[in-house]
Amino acid sequence: MKFTVIAQKGMARAGILELPHGTIETPVFMPVGTLATVKAMLPHEMEELGARIILNNAFHLYLRPGADIVAKAGGVHQFQNWKRPILTDSGGFQVFSLAKLRKVTDEGVNFQSPIDGSKHLFTPESVIALEEKLGPDIAMVLDDVVRNPSTYDEAARAMRRSVAWAGRAAKVRTRDNQAVFGIVQGGLHPDLRRESAQATVDIGFDGYAIGGLSVGESPEEMYPMIEVCTDALPVAQPRYLMGVGTPRDLREGVARGVDMFDCVLPTRLARHGVAITDEGNLNLTNARFKRDFSTPDPTCNCQTCQNFTRGYIHHLCKCGEILAARLLTYHNLYFYQALMRQLRADIIANRTTTVKESQ
Amino acid sequence: MKFTVIAQKGMARAGILELPHGTIETPVFMPVGTLATVKAMLPHEMEELGARIILNNAFHLYLRPGADIVAKAGGVHQFQNWKRPILTDSGGFQVFSLAKLRKVTDEGVNFQSPIDGSKHLFTPESVIALEEKLGPDIAMVLDDVVRNPSTYDEAARAMRRSVAWAGRAAKVRTRDNQAVFGIVQGGLHPDLRRESAQATVDIGFDGYAIGGLSVGESPEEMYPMIEVCTDALPVAQPRYLMGVGTPRDLREGVARGVDMFDCVLPTRLARHGVAITDEGNLNLTNARFKRDFSTPDPTCNCQTCQNFTRGYIHHLCKCGEILAARLLTYHNLYFYQALMRQLRADIIANRTTTVKESQ
Repeated sequence: MKFTVIAQKGMARAGILELPHGTIETPVFMPVGTLATVKAMLPHEMEELGARIILNNAFHLYLRPGADIVAKAGGVHQFQNWKRPILTDSGGFQVFSLAKLRKVTDEGVNFQSPIDGSKHLFTPESVIALEEKLGPDIAMVLDDVVRNPSTYDEAARAMRRSVAWAGRAAKVRTRDNQAVFGIVQGGLHPDLRRESAQATVDIGFDGYAIGGLSVGESPEEMYPMIEVCTDALPVAQPRYLMGVGTPRDLREGVARGVDMFDCVLPTRLARHGVAITDEGNLNLTNARFKRDFSTPDPTCNCQTCQNFTRGYIHHLCKCGEILAARLLTYHNLYFYQALMRQLRADIIANRTTTVKESQ
Repeated sequence: MKFTVIAQKGMARAGILELPHGTIETPVFMPVGTLATVKAMLPHEMEELGARIILNNAFHLYLRPGADIVAKAGGVHQFQNWKRPILTDSGGFQVFSLAKLRKVTDEGVNFQSPIDGSKHLFTPESVIALEEKLGPDIAMVLDDVVRNPSTYDEAARAMRRSVAWAGRAAKVRTRDNQAVFGIVQGGLHPDLRRESAQATVDIGFDGYAIGGLSVGESPEEMYPMIEVCTDALPVAQPRYLMGVGTPRDLREGVARGVDMFDCVLPTRLARHGVAITDEGNLNLTNARFKRDFSTPDPTCNCQTCQNFTRGYIHHLCKCGEILAARLLTYHNLYFYQALMRQLRADIIANRTTTVKESQ
């Protein structure tokens, strides 16, 4: 993996990230393909709308279909026929948010499958082994996540455990051609965030993520915390803000030196009938769109906006038709890619961002 | 509308059907897009896999979004952005199979909406007016359908009512550029089928459908009944076997002189995880496909079979992912289009069909 910062504007950076399956321009938004599919989308459509890297989830693929199956298929790229880079999330956040009867010890995390109740143990070592089987370009270490707001002691305990786990993960990794990113934790406590960043950087990873944000706090609490982290992280390596966020969050994160983002928001909102636009979110299930045969987003050049109307998509939503999810997922992901391209171009041109602040 | 038979082999015919939105080679299979969307598919994909005409359903579009909305959008073609021909089914069969508290009188059919219980009346005249608002290339008349087997008296009553309704429909049509097809009924009673064909032809339509089949009877009962109908219909006009069927049904129908078919089978089976192949139906939800990374149908050239594996689609099915429906719908419709192209080529070459008889 190679990362090159090619332009800076304040704390914001534009870069080039070279990975085994391709080169990515940063700042970048990574669409979420939890179960080895960006929901409702084909790989060639993801390429067409400009996605250069997608995220898969190691926790979900561990449960279904299982790492052995993915490995037998030839790894995550071959399994889903996606030729560009992939990052796998470790499952730290998913165990925290989805698993039943979760019990965290220093060894790792015991949990029951949300699918069949079966019992499992994730350790920092087992998760690295899992991700090496899956074969993404970038693997995330296992971390211990707490919801915000947390007490200082809760956040400190989880952060120090995450650091200890990161150290164990770093020791057992075996693949030269798979990048591994550490994760900064520490809740909403600046000194814990700084301690976490320093300790994680001391272990040494290919890149650094900021975890444990957008889990209960307001944007006004989140943004300063991002800055505390990026301030404490090395300039020469990529910074990834996990699970964030809205178009506004992306703008604010980029302005604070974040290079990579992922979030289910554009794909999940699409499946609920919402088009994300410069003018805000349009909930196309709303009856006021029934007779509206204008384009979903008049400023958008995507296939959905070029070919279909609000009234037609409203009809598809009301009838529960799969095509509604397809058309809106395509638009929302295109919108996010266009937003990131614009933010990058603004950094390179060293100009105040022209991206609207409506969201 | 213009129909030209260009080749015959026994009773089978190859033809050219010219319609306002394009020219179709027959025999043809029309994918079903009930609610103005072939479920899970985009129009450009339907063109790519070779569909030349699709079916919409007037009954469903009357209920959602309503004919006025479709008319405001510019008609069914503009509403769904499908540029090729469309046939609308009248709703006779849907009222029969889906509506609640259906009551048929000589005037028409009273029914309650399966969506909200609201009360409606369809008459032969109101359905023609509805279809003229929707604006397909071909409109079907309202008919009275009975399930097979029916008593002679039931079938005779419904058939004679269908003939009377067809006469009323023919009187009120106003559009020169919209073909209208009559429908032959008569259950499994050959003399009723002949009487129906004769009476419907006497009224005079642009083409003739065979209705009331594949509604409870076996293939062995259906096939002779198809032949009774095609024998009694004019050679110079298209014949459409409604709601049928399996690949075998298509072969047997073509051999008996049918030119047009529609059926939900390939799209519905796809959404249940089934790939239709020359070797029979593969239920990819079956656990035996979990570790099978071969192509779904080794003899198929479709995008699904060229790019994805049985094991991956199995995984998508088990996880309830939308992409499973997309990939299998694409394959199944491609399979049907390829089958029809092959049957047509065999007629033109005057050779025994090379289509496999596994289904």
